[in-house]
Amino acid sequence: MSRIEGQNSICIDLALIHHPVCNRVGEIIGSAVTNLDLHDIARAGRTFGVDTYSVVTPYEDQVVLVQEILDHWLTGYGASRNPDRKEALSIVDIRRDFDEVLDAATEKWGVRPTVLATCARLRPDTLQYEQARQRLEQGEPMLLLFGTAWGLAPEILSRVDGTLPPVLGHGTYNHLSVRSAVSIILDRLLGNRD
Amino acid sequence: MSRIEGQNSICIDLALIHHPVCNRVGEIIGSAVTNLDLHDIARAGRTFGVDTYSVVTPYEDQVVLVQEILDHWLTGYGASRNPDRKEALSIVDIRRDFDEVLDAATEKWGVRPTVLATCARLRPDTLQYEQARQRLEQGEPMLLLFGTAWGLAPEILSRVDGTLPPVLGHGTYNHLSVRSAVSIILDRLLGNRD
Repeated sequence: MSRIEGQNSICIDLALIHHPVCNRVGEIIGSAVTNLDLHDIARAGRTFGVDTYSVVTPYEDQVVLVQEILDHWLTGYGASRNPDRKEALSIVDIRRDFDEVLDAATEKWGVRPTVLATCARLRPDTLQYEQARQRLEQGEPMLLLFGTAWGLAPEILSRVDGTLPPVLGHGTYNHLSVRSAVSIILDRLLGNRD
Repeated sequence: MSRIEGQNSICIDLALIHHPVCNRVGEIIGSAVTNLDLHDIARAGRTFGVDTYSVVTPYEDQVVLVQEILDHWLTGYGASRNPDRKEALSIVDIRRDFDEVLDAATEKWGVRPTVLATCARLRPDTLQYEQARQRLEQGEPMLLLFGTAWGLAPEILSRVDGTLPPVLGHGTYNHLSVRSAVSIILDRLLGNRD
């Protein structure tokens, strides 16, 4: 099902969750979709061979907004102005909640994908990047979950099969944007090596 | 001079060039600074131990805009509201052109840094990521140049010491945002390994 020619063996989707996520004091909230998360993450997803990038929000006004943006780039003026962007945004779909994403992926791959969360903090169910990369290369379908705001809610984290380790450089500061985190994690899992 | 505690041996700066860069048909242009490039790249830079992130523009109105944004986050309301963001943006400075950046880095490190370009196309003067990573770990000062719009102008590329390879996933699509490209390249050079 992969849209990347000659790479049918990689089966990976990602979902950007806008609800339920945490705010800075740990309360459960819903966040707003941003235009830039759509574009930057779709471009990174398309580059690394992601099959579907699901924007997850239960809010009807946000669904309408995302659909308008997609229409502009997929069938409107943007499509003729910038075909590369059309190609990137063609991997985006809109889902109301995590269950919808999981059901669609399970139906597409014919098997429930391994669901991996990403988290700025180290968690006990860690799966190392190299292990996840090898399992992807062996054809195991995977679904990566990313949280907006201050991260995925506990009710989502309790349902995943594993968590990828925090991305760190030198030191302990790791306040990356979700756009940077997605890009780096896709590169660690799927990027070309020297 | 590195601001990362206990990591004095890594000497790396990056510059985001807004002029001279190419437009989609290869003409030399200047591009506008965006608020998001400031934030996302500063956050990635701070995470990976970049000493200085230079925003390079010759346009006075753009210099004023960047300074206003920095003031808000470094000394204004944003500084108390979000100290993590203050810490990230504290690595940003504003320079008029590439020579200013190079002179400042040379004065800071006491030696001219190795200047590396990044390019979505493969070039003959390629330096592999692993080689660059090892040279950084040995204390060699480096300056990474990133172009906005359709990439760095030939007059800049002709002055660099080497070029890092294009970031690719599966396939040949590599229309990453500059924010994603910076994040991935810093991770390849400086990120933690499993």
